[in-house]
Amino acid sequence: MKSTTAAPEPRRLTEKGQATRARILEHAAALIYAEGVHATNNDKLRRAAGVSGSQINHYFPTKESLVLAVIEWQAERVLGLHRSEQFDGFESLEGFRKWAAFYIGYERAYHEGCSLGSLASEIIKTDLDVHDELADAFAQWREIFRDALLRLQRQGRLSNEADAEQLASLLLAAFQGGMLLAQVARDISPLRDALEAALDYIETFAIPHDT
Amino acid sequence: MKSTTAAPEPRRLTEKGQATRARILEHAAALIYAEGVHATNNDKLRRAAGVSGSQINHYFPTKESLVLAVIEWQAERVLGLHRSEQFDGFESLEGFRKWAAFYIGYERAYHEGCSLGSLASEIIKTDLDVHDELADAFAQWREIFRDALLRLQRQGRLSNEADAEQLASLLLAAFQGGMLLAQVARDISPLRDALEAALDYIETFAIPHDT
Repeated sequence: MKSTTAAPEPRRLTEKGQATRARILEHAAALIYAEGVHATNNDKLRRAAGVSGSQINHYFPTKESLVLAVIEWQAERVLGLHRSEQFDGFESLEGFRKWAAFYIGYERAYHEGCSLGSLASEIIKTDLDVHDELADAFAQWREIFRDALLRLQRQGRLSNEADAEQLASLLLAAFQGGMLLAQVARDISPLRDALEAALDYIETFAIPHDT
Repeated sequence: MKSTTAAPEPRRLTEKGQATRARILEHAAALIYAEGVHATNNDKLRRAAGVSGSQINHYFPTKESLVLAVIEWQAERVLGLHRSEQFDGFESLEGFRKWAAFYIGYERAYHEGCSLGSLASEIIKTDLDVHDELADAFAQWREIFRDALLRLQRQGRLSNEADAEQLASLLLAAFQGGMLLAQVARDISPLRDALEAALDYIETFAIPHDT
């Protein structure tokens, strides 16, 4: 992911500087996730992170540079989780089911939604110039699903009649839309229903193992 | 849908008052759809609708009352369109395909997203007390899909193995998530893929007509 030129880059900072920047960023991400971009200001961030206003301005001179860094931070976390062993690297449909179960059981899902999707929704109509970073993050996310489905096809475990591109879009859309509907309904059911239906559909293309 | 007590209700207004309120509301909805809730202020609204600031304050004394009225206005439009003959009343799977084609071909879809979903996403984390209205609108929307699927089952045109509740959630989630992903990607493909995959899945439950 491209890094912004609006703020000093972490690698040019001293160890202490890096730690301060990371602390500000972590608290900014938490504030934005809980309260939204518009309600997050330097005052709240200063208190939450225990830093001075001038420290915030040093590392993030504009709100845009802060939001951009939070997008990158959240994208790294989400993509990193998907690439970890948490969901068995999506090496089987069971891995996809684990993924769905994780988010259905994630207690903040129907309060605050997807950390990246809710941020995207909130700022997509603003003037903040963070479009490329968001588009890149969602494209990578979708590719994780697509590549996993293509791999299952190569292994003969998923019918070649399955359209991996389309199914990857369905999964990510069902996830994002289900998160929004769950937030609105204050109930996890819309997310659970959407993900289970999407996975049931993918399962119709499964080719049973010879054991 | 409940009406707010924060602003005079249309039916208590004179004919001229109703027309002024409707004009303000229509322009507020257009502004919010194009620029978002946060960027919409009385100054812009005054210029767009050609009314005075005191007229706006008369009909919508607070931003909350204005946003609430816009939610109701957008919900009526969206639900009304779904209940009209535009999509054959969803009396066949062909009607569902028409519905998908309409939104896939809707040129503002991937610029501004769903009129109701993008509004919901933008304000869900704010203090605006508009939660019940949003939840009610999405619940009604989902019921349109569910009731149509149940009707097809009663008519023996859709297998009873289909879970109408779950499929209705999948459709609405795929739509909302697809709209968000299309906006982020500035490309309609994610919406098209998600809706076509969801409908392909529903189609697997179709029972061919005896003709």
